[in-house]
Amino acid sequence: MKQFAIAIHGGAGTILRSTMSPENEMNYKKGLEEAILAGDAILSSGGTALDAVEAAVKKLEDNPLFNAGRGAVFTNEGKNEMDSSIMNGQNLMAGAVTGINNIKNPISLARAVMEKSEHVFLSGSGAIEFAKKMKLEFAPDEYFFVQERYDQLLQAKESDHMVLDHSILRSTNTALGDAENKTPTSKKGTVGAVALDIHGNIAAATSTGGMTNKKFGRVGDSPVIGAGTYANNNTCAVSCTGHGEFFIRAVAAYDISCLMEYKGLSLNKACDEVVHQKLVKLGGEGGLIAIDAEGNIEMPFNSEGMYRASRKSGGEVYIGIYND
Amino acid sequence: MKQFAIAIHGGAGTILRSTMSPENEMNYKKGLEEAILAGDAILSSGGTALDAVEAAVKKLEDNPLFNAGRGAVFTNEGKNEMDSSIMNGQNLMAGAVTGINNIKNPISLARAVMEKSEHVFLSGSGAIEFAKKMKLEFAPDEYFFVQERYDQLLQAKESDHMVLDHSILRSTNTALGDAENKTPTSKKGTVGAVALDIHGNIAAATSTGGMTNKKFGRVGDSPVIGAGTYANNNTCAVSCTGHGEFFIRAVAAYDISCLMEYKGLSLNKACDEVVHQKLVKLGGEGGLIAIDAEGNIEMPFNSEGMYRASRKSGGEVYIGIYND
Repeated sequence: MKQFAIAIHGGAGTILRSTMSPENEMNYKKGLEEAILAGDAILSSGGTALDAVEAAVKKLEDNPLFNAGRGAVFTNEGKNEMDSSIMNGQNLMAGAVTGINNIKNPISLARAVMEKSEHVFLSGSGAIEFAKKMKLEFAPDEYFFVQERYDQLLQAKESDHMVLDHSILRSTNTALGDAENKTPTSKKGTVGAVALDIHGNIAAATSTGGMTNKKFGRVGDSPVIGAGTYANNNTCAVSCTGHGEFFIRAVAAYDISCLMEYKGLSLNKACDEVVHQKLVKLGGEGGLIAIDAEGNIEMPFNSEGMYRASRKSGGEVYIGIYND
Repeated sequence: MKQFAIAIHGGAGTILRSTMSPENEMNYKKGLEEAILAGDAILSSGGTALDAVEAAVKKLEDNPLFNAGRGAVFTNEGKNEMDSSIMNGQNLMAGAVTGINNIKNPISLARAVMEKSEHVFLSGSGAIEFAKKMKLEFAPDEYFFVQERYDQLLQAKESDHMVLDHSILRSTNTALGDAENKTPTSKKGTVGAVALDIHGNIAAATSTGGMTNKKFGRVGDSPVIGAGTYANNNTCAVSCTGHGEFFIRAVAAYDISCLMEYKGLSLNKACDEVVHQKLVKLGGEGGLIAIDAEGNIEMPFNSEGMYRASRKSGGEVYIGIYND
C-alpha cells in the first residue's frame, strides 16, 4: 500500500499545562482528533491531499474553540475578519483571501479562488462578491458570535491592546495579563493542515480569524503564499502559525522549501533552521507543520505550546499541545 | 569612494517599438530619467538605499504615464485601488498595503507601515485610516483621474475583460486587441526601484495601480513580500513586474535570494533561472530588477519590453524599453 499522511495545527502560543483545565484540554484534543480523522478518512480511501487538508481545516473552522471560521476573534470594530490560503504541491496552484466575513468556511473560498478564478489572492468585499458568485455557504453574524471572543475584545479594548493571535497580551498591564492567563482558551490562533496522498501529491491549507482588537485591516501571514502557506511536490507542504509579521519577513514557508531544494537539507533540518534559528533571531514566536513527499512530518514550534495532531498511513493518531 | 547604484522599472509587458510613437517614447524616457536621478541624488550625497528607492518610486507614482499613484488604472467599479510594498535589506523590516485609494504616494504609506506600526501588511479602509493617523498626503479623485485610463476601463468593460497589468488583452476580440495595440501607453504596469547605498545597505520598493477593470478585490504580487518585493543585505534586493499571479506562486523575489544564499548562484544566474526558466515554465510573463551588495544590477524580463533605467556610482544613466 502506498503511504499517506496528514498533520494539522490549531495555533501556537502561550499554551501552558499549568493554566489549562482538564476539561479544556479534553475539548481541544477532541477537536484536533475530529479534524485529523476527517482528513485521514479522505486519504485512506484514495482521496487527494487537497481534499484532505480542506476537510481537516473545515472541521477546525467549524469548531468555536479555534480562531478560524466559527470562533474567529473580533476586530476593533467588533467584526470578524478572516484570512485563508491553500496550495497544491502538484502544480503550484494557489488561492488565498483576506479580510472576509460571513463565509462559513474561508478555506473553501480560498480553494474556489484557486480553482475557479484567474487569480490567486482576493480581498475584502470583492472576495465576498466572488464567494456569492461561487455559491459558497454564508453564515449570519450570530453563527460566528462566541461570547468568550467578544469578551476578549471588550477586555482588549479597555487596555487598547491588540491580542496577537494566541499569545499573551504584550502588555505591561499586569491586571489584564493575569486575566489573560486565567483564560487560556482565549489564546488560540490560526489553524492549518498539510497532507500527502497515495498519488504522491502534497498540499497545504491555513485559515485564521486574525487577532482580537486588530485595527487598520492588518493582514498576517496566513493568506500570504510563501509566508504562511506553501506546497511543492519536490520539497514540502507547510502551514504556519504565530506572530505573522515575522513569518512574512522571513518568507517562512517557502524558506523551508528552498533550504531543502537548494541546500539539500532534510525536512527536519530545514524546519529546525527556520523555526529555531531564523525566526528566533528575528524575534518571531510560533510554529508550523510540514510534510514531504516521503510522508515525513515535522511540527516544530518555538512558543510554549502548539495544538497539533498527525497520523501516518492509518497508524496511531498523535495529539500534542504542550512543549514536552 | 564607496559604490552606490540604483535601478528602476516602470512595468513590463507587450511594449513594441513598432507601436510606440517617438513622442511617447521620449516621454517615457524622460519619466524614467527623472526617477533614476531622484534616487541617484540621494545615494550620491550619502543617503540611504531606503530613501533612494522611495524617492524614485514617488517620481514614477507622480507621473501619470505609469500605472501607480497618479495614473493608476480603474477597477470595474470605476475606482483606483493601489498596492505597494517596501523592504529594508539591512534588517529585513518590511511594509506593504493593498486596496488603497486617494493616497498620493502609496509607497510612502508602505514605508510608514514598516516604520511606524507593529505590522507589515495593511489593507483597504483600515490602511487608509492608518494613513490619516500618520498624516500622509491625500489627493482627491480628480488628481488620480487620467482620461486615457478611464477610456481603457470603458473599453475593457465593453468586452468584459480585465487588463492584466501592462499586457495586451488576453482576448480573442481582435477589434479590441487592435485598439490596445494602437494605444501602447495603456499597457504600463507596476513601478519599482532597488538600490545600494554607500553604507552597504540595499532596499527594494514596488507600487502599482493594479489592472484595468479588475474585480473581486484582486491582489497581485506587488504588495506581497517575497513575491513582488524582497531585500536582504546578504543576497539581493528585488522588485518585480508582470502577471502577478505567477510571481506569487513562484515566490519570485525571495526565490532569487534563496538561489544566491543556498545554491551559491550569482545575481545574474539566479535572475536568469527565475525569469527565463521557472516563470516561463509556469507561464508567467514579466520581469524584475535586482541589485546585490556589490552593486551588480540585473534587469531581466521575458516579455517583449520593460521600462527600465539604472545608474552606478554616478556613471552613465542607462535607459531601456525594448528587448534589444
